[in-house]
Amino acid sequence: MKKMIIASTSTIYGSDYLEYILPELADFFKEVEEVLFIPYARPGGVTYDEYTNVARKAFDEIGKGIKGIHEFNDPKIAVQNAKAIFVGGGNTFVLVDTLYKHNLFSEIVKAVESGTLYFGTSAGSNITGVNMKTTNDMPIVYPPDFKTLGLIPFNLNPHYLDPDPSSKHKGETRETRIREFHGYNDIPVLGLREGSWLDVKGQKIILKGELSAKLFRKSEKPIELDPGIIRIDISSH
Amino acid sequence: MKKMIIASTSTIYGSDYLEYILPELADFFKEVEEVLFIPYARPGGVTYDEYTNVARKAFDEIGKGIKGIHEFNDPKIAVQNAKAIFVGGGNTFVLVDTLYKHNLFSEIVKAVESGTLYFGTSAGSNITGVNMKTTNDMPIVYPPDFKTLGLIPFNLNPHYLDPDPSSKHKGETRETRIREFHGYNDIPVLGLREGSWLDVKGQKIILKGELSAKLFRKSEKPIELDPGIIRIDISSH
Repeated sequence: MKKMIIASTSTIYGSDYLEYILPELADFFKEVEEVLFIPYARPGGVTYDEYTNVARKAFDEIGKGIKGIHEFNDPKIAVQNAKAIFVGGGNTFVLVDTLYKHNLFSEIVKAVESGTLYFGTSAGSNITGVNMKTTNDMPIVYPPDFKTLGLIPFNLNPHYLDPDPSSKHKGETRETRIREFHGYNDIPVLGLREGSWLDVKGQKIILKGELSAKLFRKSEKPIELDPGIIRIDISSH
Repeated sequence: MKKMIIASTSTIYGSDYLEYILPELADFFKEVEEVLFIPYARPGGVTYDEYTNVARKAFDEIGKGIKGIHEFNDPKIAVQNAKAIFVGGGNTFVLVDTLYKHNLFSEIVKAVESGTLYFGTSAGSNITGVNMKTTNDMPIVYPPDFKTLGLIPFNLNPHYLDPDPSSKHKGETRETRIREFHGYNDIPVLGLREGSWLDVKGQKIILKGELSAKLFRKSEKPIELDPGIIRIDISSH
């Protein structure tokens, strides 16, 4: 059965890397000793080693080992053998480009559908959706495709931000951007605020954390979903 | 000689569409009667007709006619025959995708290099750079390439926003995103704040408006450029 934790962000304001979600992770990873870390999104351009050490330090708190995928000769085999995978945040374009370079998309889908645990934050969560067309990131590299894992039947917008009514900035709000997305795409989009995450077990998706999430559908008024089981019916749209 | 006005935004806070820049446009377009408008970026998903009417209303204030490129049978011939082009803002991915579909990139470069006036705002400014990899927009469609007009020898980041020191949001700041860009690209990036524009005449580029612009170079500390002639030496980098 598919088991995933899909988090809006690795870090919430005033707290350490992953700190807010460590109790959930301790439970989620209770059966595994080591997690395969995929550092490809390279936030702020850090090296794979630096990034893996950041993840290692946090996972050390819950007594789990971390091994970076770049430490293996063959990343495909690393995915095949992993009991648990953590895909960290950073730049989604860079992450997707690198996953395509190593032909890892189908490998990760196969693994997660066979029960390999998946934990993602930010860009690592973005790619669990149908495509990466609702990322907030800058397109600093050109990936061969925007299609992503499709492990959930909708798209995510992590770090979802409500419009600031006092802003004098004339760039688009997040809501406007997602409305523009729906001018070209039918896929529902879930705006996941910082501090929220999805707990996925097979077909069951639970919104966790204290905040509601905002669901955007083509040609409909967005709605707020409270924490708890969420049902996003795709078929009727 | 190449003559361009490259503006960060169409609209500044508390003012109508193009209002802040109309005096500059009246002078810039003084020799032409009609401007070819390219509405492909479709801000907020408006139709080409709706968007063209918005531009028409503003240009009416300075006694200039506007014709939308979609009103012509052959957009290439429309570009070839235009004395002046205005590319409006919206979504840069949609704009670039549509320009590629109509094979207009080389046509616009040829026209502008032969003296056709070019005015761009936001997405329409973004595409004057070497590539669109420093856009702020959401990748709602997948264009065949990120390469753009290359009419200026650097990239732009329109609607440039300084980090907000009071923010509790953990998404990347604009500066972090541009630093990530420089992890993969050497091209200098000019962060153009709302209310600023570049006045380009051949090789001479003047920063206009009241604000400074922020220049980012790979592996260097960003610097502020005051309004006036700007020189971005590419060769030494």
